[in-house]
Amino acid sequence: MTGLSLNTVTVRDRWSLAQCIEGCARHGIPGISPWRDKLGEMGVAAAARRIREAGLFVSGLCRGGMFPAADAAGRRAAIEDNLRAIEEAAAIGARCLVVLGGGLPAGSKDLPGARAMFRDGLAEVLPAARAAGVTIALEPLHPMTCADRSVLSTLGQALDLAEEFGEGVGIALDVYHVWWDPELERQVRRARGRIAAFHVCDWLVPTSDLVFDRGMMGEGVIDIPRIRAMAEAAGYDGPSEVEILSRRWWAEEPDRVLERIVDWGRGA
Amino acid sequence: MTGLSLNTVTVRDRWSLAQCIEGCARHGIPGISPWRDKLGEMGVAAAARRIREAGLFVSGLCRGGMFPAADAAGRRAAIEDNLRAIEEAAAIGARCLVVLGGGLPAGSKDLPGARAMFRDGLAEVLPAARAAGVTIALEPLHPMTCADRSVLSTLGQALDLAEEFGEGVGIALDVYHVWWDPELERQVRRARGRIAAFHVCDWLVPTSDLVFDRGMMGEGVIDIPRIRAMAEAAGYDGPSEVEILSRRWWAEEPDRVLERIVDWGRGA
Repeated sequence: MTGLSLNTVTVRDRWSLAQCIEGCARHGIPGISPWRDKLGEMGVAAAARRIREAGLFVSGLCRGGMFPAADAAGRRAAIEDNLRAIEEAAAIGARCLVVLGGGLPAGSKDLPGARAMFRDGLAEVLPAARAAGVTIALEPLHPMTCADRSVLSTLGQALDLAEEFGEGVGIALDVYHVWWDPELERQVRRARGRIAAFHVCDWLVPTSDLVFDRGMMGEGVIDIPRIRAMAEAAGYDGPSEVEILSRRWWAEEPDRVLERIVDWGRGA
Repeated sequence: MTGLSLNTVTVRDRWSLAQCIEGCARHGIPGISPWRDKLGEMGVAAAARRIREAGLFVSGLCRGGMFPAADAAGRRAAIEDNLRAIEEAAAIGARCLVVLGGGLPAGSKDLPGARAMFRDGLAEVLPAARAAGVTIALEPLHPMTCADRSVLSTLGQALDLAEEFGEGVGIALDVYHVWWDPELERQVRRARGRIAAFHVCDWLVPTSDLVFDRGMMGEGVIDIPRIRAMAEAAGYDGPSEVEILSRRWWAEEPDRVLERIVDWGRGA
């Protein structure tokens, strides 16, 4: 383990970005990964300064992508938004910009079409990302999010794109989204040199919600050490970023949440 | 379209097997696919006779499989249960026995181990299936069911097994479980000669439950005609079996449900 990072969504309902930065410093969590709405709270320049002053690294910025849209204006708006996200990622020194697929456009059943829109959007913003030195981390989300959040569904699909586009395009490996994949071991091997982020949380049994019922590491059935070992065998030596979207954990006192995270990081 | 079949789970809370058989006959649905608990209601021999007298074909029997278990006794019990399921499938003249993966054993995080248990269980019951002339239809379920229902997660994984075991092993293609798969087109092509069943329902946006919130065909975002066309291009000419697990549809009057199904079958 070469360190932890706190994705701010983990305490999103309770802490501001300023509190997240202070909390990471107080609990000895060396990295942070803000969502863009949190950045907006204090402004990008101030956020960059505060994070730097606290001595934290930025494991990623969440999130860009979401290119599929029902019309040309919608697709253009997504591209403009991604160009802003790239600037923000550069400004805070993020190791990557996490890029999500986005769902089917409203009213559409054309999944191959939405996937083509994603590819086209990525192609359009990639030159700006390369110019800014921002690595794009394509994050496949669990197939249960395909309709409304992510037409990027598997590691294999993300790696097809990463290999096609090459320079500046990697992947974000989130154990929650990929643990079930029969191809996992093979695809993580294939990801050598392209793993820009490694996210952790856990799959609960039962899971009561398709989006907001993730577990703290150790609460569920994902063999996280096994997947971490695969990533390390493929050359990844970055942090484990903790990203827990959970109504249950959002109801907890954030300092207790960070204590649990630190305990997990110590192998407790 | 070469016909519809009603999977009895679609009206499970409202109709007995006898009512399902009468309902199919009354609505002009030529096929039926009972779950084993429904068969138990009237006994297998009586069920076989009633279905035959009503002039229905049996598109499948749900369900066998579920081999992973925490100990040897549990694995043995699953095998015994599958041997009974094979006898029942033969007795009612089912075109296949639908076989599910089963989830992780309680307390286990060993997904490769559970998958190996599935393979071993399949190997053990296959001779009996072949002897009885019962086709095993491996049905991959949506990855969101991996922890507690199905370690068989993708069409590619099911086809690896079907190709390994050969004679007597096919796959059940359920649009709900596979529609998101970036590999879908390639894997359905690969399934030529092995598609033993084709199941339909729809993916709702939003989906409120991981198991019991499927939609009626047309209510959701799955491009069912596209997937049906893939199956037909791969040589499948059997029925579309309607399998809707839905608290909402279970609350509807079953004759209304069957009307909707028949309308869909007509392309209405």
